[in-house]
Amino acid sequence: MHDRFLRACRREPTDVTPVWFMRQAGRYMAEYRALREKHTLLEICKTPELALEVTLQPLRLGVDAAILFADILLVLEPMGAPFEFAKGEGPVIHEPVRDRAAIDRLRVFDPEEGLGYVLSALRLIRRELDGKTPLIGFAGAPFTIASYLIEGGKSSDYRRTKQIMWTEPEAWSALMGKISEVVRRYLRAQVTAGAQAVQLFDSWVGALSPEDYREHVLPHVRHILSDLETTGVPVIHFGTNTATLLEAQVEAGGTVIGVDHRIALDDAWPRIGDRAIQGNLDPLLLCAPTRVAADRARKVLAKAAGRRGHIFNLGHGIVPETPVDHVKAMVDLVHSVPLAQA
Amino acid sequence: MHDRFLRACRREPTDVTPVWFMRQAGRYMAEYRALREKHTLLEICKTPELALEVTLQPLRLGVDAAILFADILLVLEPMGAPFEFAKGEGPVIHEPVRDRAAIDRLRVFDPEEGLGYVLSALRLIRRELDGKTPLIGFAGAPFTIASYLIEGGKSSDYRRTKQIMWTEPEAWSALMGKISEVVRRYLRAQVTAGAQAVQLFDSWVGALSPEDYREHVLPHVRHILSDLETTGVPVIHFGTNTATLLEAQVEAGGTVIGVDHRIALDDAWPRIGDRAIQGNLDPLLLCAPTRVAADRARKVLAKAAGRRGHIFNLGHGIVPETPVDHVKAMVDLVHSVPLAQA
Repeated sequence: MHDRFLRACRREPTDVTPVWFMRQAGRYMAEYRALREKHTLLEICKTPELALEVTLQPLRLGVDAAILFADILLVLEPMGAPFEFAKGEGPVIHEPVRDRAAIDRLRVFDPEEGLGYVLSALRLIRRELDGKTPLIGFAGAPFTIASYLIEGGKSSDYRRTKQIMWTEPEAWSALMGKISEVVRRYLRAQVTAGAQAVQLFDSWVGALSPEDYREHVLPHVRHILSDLETTGVPVIHFGTNTATLLEAQVEAGGTVIGVDHRIALDDAWPRIGDRAIQGNLDPLLLCAPTRVAADRARKVLAKAAGRRGHIFNLGHGIVPETPVDHVKAMVDLVHSVPLAQA
Repeated sequence: MHDRFLRACRREPTDVTPVWFMRQAGRYMAEYRALREKHTLLEICKTPELALEVTLQPLRLGVDAAILFADILLVLEPMGAPFEFAKGEGPVIHEPVRDRAAIDRLRVFDPEEGLGYVLSALRLIRRELDGKTPLIGFAGAPFTIASYLIEGGKSSDYRRTKQIMWTEPEAWSALMGKISEVVRRYLRAQVTAGAQAVQLFDSWVGALSPEDYREHVLPHVRHILSDLETTGVPVIHFGTNTATLLEAQVEAGGTVIGVDHRIALDDAWPRIGDRAIQGNLDPLLLCAPTRVAADRARKVLAKAAGRRGHIFNLGHGIVPETPVDHVKAMVDLVHSVPLAQA
């Protein structure tokens, strides 16, 4: 089995540094765009055969892991907060959740009932991969999901989210409690369905001060991760803009801590202690000339040299404008650099 | 004279912690909104009497400094890149600067000619303040200005900006060189016109890795700040999302380093060394109940206790939804906390 990704998660020796990319299945690939001409994003997510097809598309680039094709917002519909992807505008939640009554109406559902199609896709993909490439499942983290629910979409300042957090701490806690229980069950079900690692995406948590993170977010993330850790599969705890949150994120849990390009790996790693680390090339560098990107990637690898447990990735997802051959070249580069591990 | 702001910039003892707010003149105030019903933002900027009126509006709240009412994008028009504020959409640059020819056409202008109205406003405001409240001038920093020029407005990922930075380093350097010379002259002219301190706003520089900041931005900021430091007026060097850039920003210069709410003051301060610090309450806290905001503000003040040179401010600008009485209450709170200075 092609297991250097899982070995790195456990900080075991590997031949070279494993690499995969957030949004490695996506609009930058012609075969994905072709499928999207026939199907919406939600149709692909909800049809296991299509989710399988898209999940496998980037494997031809030589990445060391497959990640389930899905969306962090899929939990919203079974919670009772339907949404759509408006053309060019990102997700729109039809009835944003902004008071205690709306929070109380949200449902904590059984993942086999509410998101059975994701679990079916996972089982299908795992069977198809046949142990050749490890399969990563994922979910959105409570703060990030709560921000979409409250703002009604992507926000630039999270004003309404912070307003509820500070003004109605009991309502906030009830909301975060519901989301974290949904996510805990969902990720557990993904592991049961065959995910060999899971990533928790707290993409927008970097909008918070360390103090707010500790008081209003950390306990809810810990609720998820302390349970997930008992499954034995590696858990990647990821966020962006988290340079000042790393110690608190580690307290919340995670086998692997994912960081974005804003922090140097050799600055981040001592602060997360005895964990593996994932990252952290600026995703826009995959749009730059491959010579420039290769130079920066070598520097990222150099900053991880001498320690086991580095998984190469971007600081966030691949952008649609990325040339696919740049992605392939990056995989080849990472695999070509000899490891000098401790 | 009411000089605790200037004394804190120089790290001299003060009676209490000085406080002012970014965007302290703005849409959260009824008197500002009333004026905006009759005049556009650019009309106010371009009419010294109106700029004076708006600059003075927040002084009734008891802040320790006045900041010139203007916009960081005013430099664009005399550079040859006109723009407008589209309704509800922020700034729109009519012809974004995306190639070497467009960069070469940009003009490095004489501030008295290109932005004489700002300098007239400064002289008028300074005379009107009559030494009672110190007056802060300001300008946008080269990366932040370049990002607007290249993207054509506010960006979420700075893709085109980074593309030029990485792909055409000579064109990038020419662009940053022009902007930094414009900003250097403009801030010098502001000092001559009466600004008693100046703030350089590098609001969006936190999108860069420390490596890119050092290679592609730092020398240009240093061009501005090393010159400004010879004027003797305090220079506030501000950015958001800069937790991993602080040491490099200090190398670029500044009497005072401004930080946002993402980093604890007692984490940031040792890293900036022998400088004053400005910040760093989450601006959204001014929308929260005053009890919650007061608690957080006391914690910010406590983290600065025992060191001279703290200027209380937000992590970024006041948002329009802020109740004006919350701002007044915050000023009173900051002034009520006894100082325990070293």
